[in-house]
Amino acid sequence: MAKILINDKNIYYEVHGEGEPLIILNGIMMSTTSWQGFVDVLAENNKLILLDFIDQGQSDKSHIDYNQDIHVETLVGLLDYLDINKVHMVGISYGGEVAMKFSLKYQERLNSLTLANTTSYTNHNLKDIGKSWINAAKTCNGSNFFKTTIPVIYSTEFYEENIEWLRKREELFRQAFTKEWYEGFIRLTLSAEDLNVTEELENIKVPTLIIGSEEDIITPIKYQQKIHDKIKDSRFAVIKEAGHASMYEKPYEFLALVLGFIKVYNKEIKIS
Amino acid sequence: MAKILINDKNIYYEVHGEGEPLIILNGIMMSTTSWQGFVDVLAENNKLILLDFIDQGQSDKSHIDYNQDIHVETLVGLLDYLDINKVHMVGISYGGEVAMKFSLKYQERLNSLTLANTTSYTNHNLKDIGKSWINAAKTCNGSNFFKTTIPVIYSTEFYEENIEWLRKREELFRQAFTKEWYEGFIRLTLSAEDLNVTEELENIKVPTLIIGSEEDIITPIKYQQKIHDKIKDSRFAVIKEAGHASMYEKPYEFLALVLGFIKVYNKEIKIS
Amino acid sequence: MAKILINDKNIYYEVHGEGEPLIILNGIMMSTTSWQGFVDVLAENNKLILLDFIDQGQSDKSHIDYNQDIHVETLVGLLDYLDINKVHMVGISYGGEVAMKFSLKYQERLNSLTLANTTSYTNHNLKDIGKSWINAAKTCNGSNFFKTTIPVIYSTEFYEENIEWLRKREELFRQAFTKEWYEGFIRLTLSAEDLNVTEELENIKVPTLIIGSEEDIITPIKYQQKIHDKIKDSRFAVIKEAGHASMYEKPYEFLALVLGFIKVYNKEIKIS
Amino acid sequence: MAKILINDKNIYYEVHGEGEPLIILNGIMMSTTSWQGFVDVLAENNKLILLDFIDQGQSDKSHIDYNQDIHVETLVGLLDYLDINKVHMVGISYGGEVAMKFSLKYQERLNSLTLANTTSYTNHNLKDIGKSWINAAKTCNGSNFFKTTIPVIYSTEFYEENIEWLRKREELFRQAFTKEWYEGFIRLTLSAEDLNVTEELENIKVPTLIIGSEEDIITPIKYQQKIHDKIKDSRFAVIKEAGHASMYEKPYEFLALVLGFIKVYNKEIKIS
Repeated sequence: MAKILINDKNIYYEVHGEGEPLIILNGIMMSTTSWQGFVDVLAENNKLILLDFIDQGQSDKSHIDYNQDIHVETLVGLLDYLDINKVHMVGISYGGEVAMKFSLKYQERLNSLTLANTTSYTNHNLKDIGKSWINAAKTCNGSNFFKTTIPVIYSTEFYEENIEWLRKREELFRQAFTKEWYEGFIRLTLSAEDLNVTEELENIKVPTLIIGSEEDIITPIKYQQKIHDKIKDSRFAVIKEAGHASMYEKPYEFLALVLGFIKVYNKEIKIS
Repeated sequence: MAKILINDKNIYYEVHGEGEPLIILNGIMMSTTSWQGFVDVLAENNKLILLDFIDQGQSDKSHIDYNQDIHVETLVGLLDYLDINKVHMVGISYGGEVAMKFSLKYQERLNSLTLANTTSYTNHNLKDIGKSWINAAKTCNGSNFFKTTIPVIYSTEFYEENIEWLRKREELFRQAFTKEWYEGFIRLTLSAEDLNVTEELENIKVPTLIIGSEEDIITPIKYQQKIHDKIKDSRFAVIKEAGHASMYEKPYEFLALVLGFIKVYNKEIKIS
Repeated sequence: MAKILINDKNIYYEVHGEGEPLIILNGIMMSTTSWQGFVDVLAENNKLILLDFIDQGQSDKSHIDYNQDIHVETLVGLLDYLDINKVHMVGISYGGEVAMKFSLKYQERLNSLTLANTTSYTNHNLKDIGKSWINAAKTCNGSNFFKTTIPVIYSTEFYEENIEWLRKREELFRQAFTKEWYEGFIRLTLSAEDLNVTEELENIKVPTLIIGSEEDIITPIKYQQKIHDKIKDSRFAVIKEAGHASMYEKPYEFLALVLGFIKVYNKEIKIS
Repeated sequence: MAKILINDKNIYYEVHGEGEPLIILNGIMMSTTSWQGFVDVLAENNKLILLDFIDQGQSDKSHIDYNQDIHVETLVGLLDYLDINKVHMVGISYGGEVAMKFSLKYQERLNSLTLANTTSYTNHNLKDIGKSWINAAKTCNGSNFFKTTIPVIYSTEFYEENIEWLRKREELFRQAFTKEWYEGFIRLTLSAEDLNVTEELENIKVPTLIIGSEEDIITPIKYQQKIHDKIKDSRFAVIKEAGHASMYEKPYEFLALVLGFIKVYNKEIKIS
């Protein structure tokens, strides 16, 4: 519940609990508040660190364009400030992309890496989806923006069963998202456009868990398969009946994998 | 290459070749011209009938709202006019939805039924995707419209390999789509909103082939599974590495299935 | 590392570590020794209980036929003897079948239930596979038995990458499996023949985790889907690139799910 | 319904109908009689050629070991004898393996190639399954042999729905399979052991259709994916809810694909 100045930007962060440090990197439309309902569980045995990237939540806006490397430096700055040498890093979607970039530069700072619903390459299809999201953001119309982004983020099953909750979120979009928020969202979207780390991934030696979702159409399982094929010491599990927002659609499977992996990642297990 | 007046609307249709009649029902963004490259093959041994639904291609615009039943009556009128008693009917996506509705009312007019990339129910997720398409259509901006609709229609693989062709199509969208076209598209989209024939499908007794595509995210395979579970005499095949636009992405697999099925649908095959 | 007499049979069991009790039920060809390499991790924060069912490992042979209910009573007897009121129960394949039967009779004794690579019904296909295993067992030839059972238990990938290890296991089969062992194996196989609890599963109210493996051909994912559809409070994750023996092929994913779930199963998580 | 002597072996073959020649290569446990119920449909517009490989059906036994190349020469001999220059070749499983080997040596004799439920490499897993089949064959016990081979060949769904038919086949196995038949089967199985043409497949330039089955556990879809990735001009479709014996489980989907493909394989289709 504090801010620190890193590279001239105020970065909002939270620290909860005690134990081995665990940092969670938000997806593009998320913020620290998205994790409110997860904090107690995540911080039960770990020092949990949450943050808003530049242009997210309560951190400063950027006002100029950038790419995802900017967040890598934010992360290092924050870890240094908190005097944390090594951390378990968990990235969701956009946050997973940043986590891979962080690993490629600073993997000595990682105990383990978890990549949920992540791609290593913004292909033409994703780029065009990004453009449609930007177009919707430019209207500054919460309902337009919701209709363009949300149906492809959640699974059909979740959509059918939670339509009331989704309608409330649409209302929230209409009320909460300001012009400034949309401008930040557009910059964040653009910052992922040049992502292409597939070939470099083989340099990641950190124990890694890759989480995919059966119904994810933004970053389908085959995208994570590519990551798995490149990172030698990686594990791979899939959450059934979930779309791109696996943590929201299937919080128990998501948390079991995240918390279970940081229990076992460094154990030697012999099959006899 | 003619028009007939059915229920006060001029309906554009084409007839090619000779043989057992085969009628193809367009997807929502398609028209008879979409089939240009397919006509020779489809008409080689069959009397091929193509048509533009109301609000498609060269048929009349509606100017008032309707649901998909309106096309069912267009189809019967056209078959009557052409003096065709029984036909092989092939529907693509929106056209498959119309084909199911036709089957439920006039199945005695069908020799066989092929449903490609079709759903039997417009669920909340699809409704919201429809709304985002309508929002994009309202801008009358071809590029906006392209970016909102096309990335979810084609598979990632197709997108990567055919990005130049896609950019040309985007240019075409910019030039060719008029305000009138967008208004027609919006009415067509709205006409599918109340579709829900899942439970009735068990009444379809026509030999049916269901075609899905592995990467279809608009009407994923599980939607076709529901249709297959309901139509007793149905067959089910999946085209690999294709998205929603299977006929364009994988024309050989698509045509092999369509033309093969009308060769074998009524044969008695004994396994011994 | 002890035996107790339950219903006239000496049952071998082991207890390791301290914490909430966690009991693991073996697959049909396994025994407590199969878990040797896993004990340290599983017992790090839990009181781990392992046992050999009748006709497994160091427990008594049965000499007469039975069905899986016999093991349910063994389990209750063991828990009572150890003065354990509530336990986390994890069942692998055959052990998962016993775990479901236990849940249906004594679910008040469970904190959570994890079913890995489990089916709720021994269908005709599985019955015939069982018969082929019995035929191979009757030859008392370790190599015959290996060739009939093992290729369908492990994934193709595992087989290719671990062929040396598998050849050593085949040698072990030749040396270690006695006529008595094969007779026990045959009785265990027969005891699962009448399993059919699918319809009853809706009575299980215990928080449940279902683990499937992408390449499992003995109990494919669709079998676990049926279990998931019936147990309302169930979670479902799939381990990629693993066959039926998920714990051996992908120990990290398996352990992450098992240990993660018993951390989160009873937490309230609110998505906001 | 005749035999010709090729390389000192009498080869039984059948020719049915008129049209472009279409030759079908049996799976390992099949013979020309397996196609009895399919002949009328397959020969309706084509000159259909069926044959029994050496050690199959009514062709001569070999008495000495060989590999699959022997059948390639049989095929060329038969085509020469029938004065057929170019043919559509369809191979099922073992027959698909022979078809690939034929293509690699004589692709100028092919109009098109269809590979159903085929692998390009006998991996260790398949080799061990082969060994278990050989062990079962050596017992000369039809019921043993059935239980070891058939449950992994058919899908679970087919097994449940056709258990009576399967029991009749088991009875047939008991009555019809002689010591001589089993010896032939063992040689055929061994002849596939050294198959590994994956890397050479890129030399196949013939229009190719690859057919997989969703539930095939002997040659899962990923095996066909490798073939598809290597043969540039290949198409790929999957039959839903079928196991390895796709032609028997889903004859309509199988025939639609086979007959449809030979209608369209050489057509130029332009998407506009």
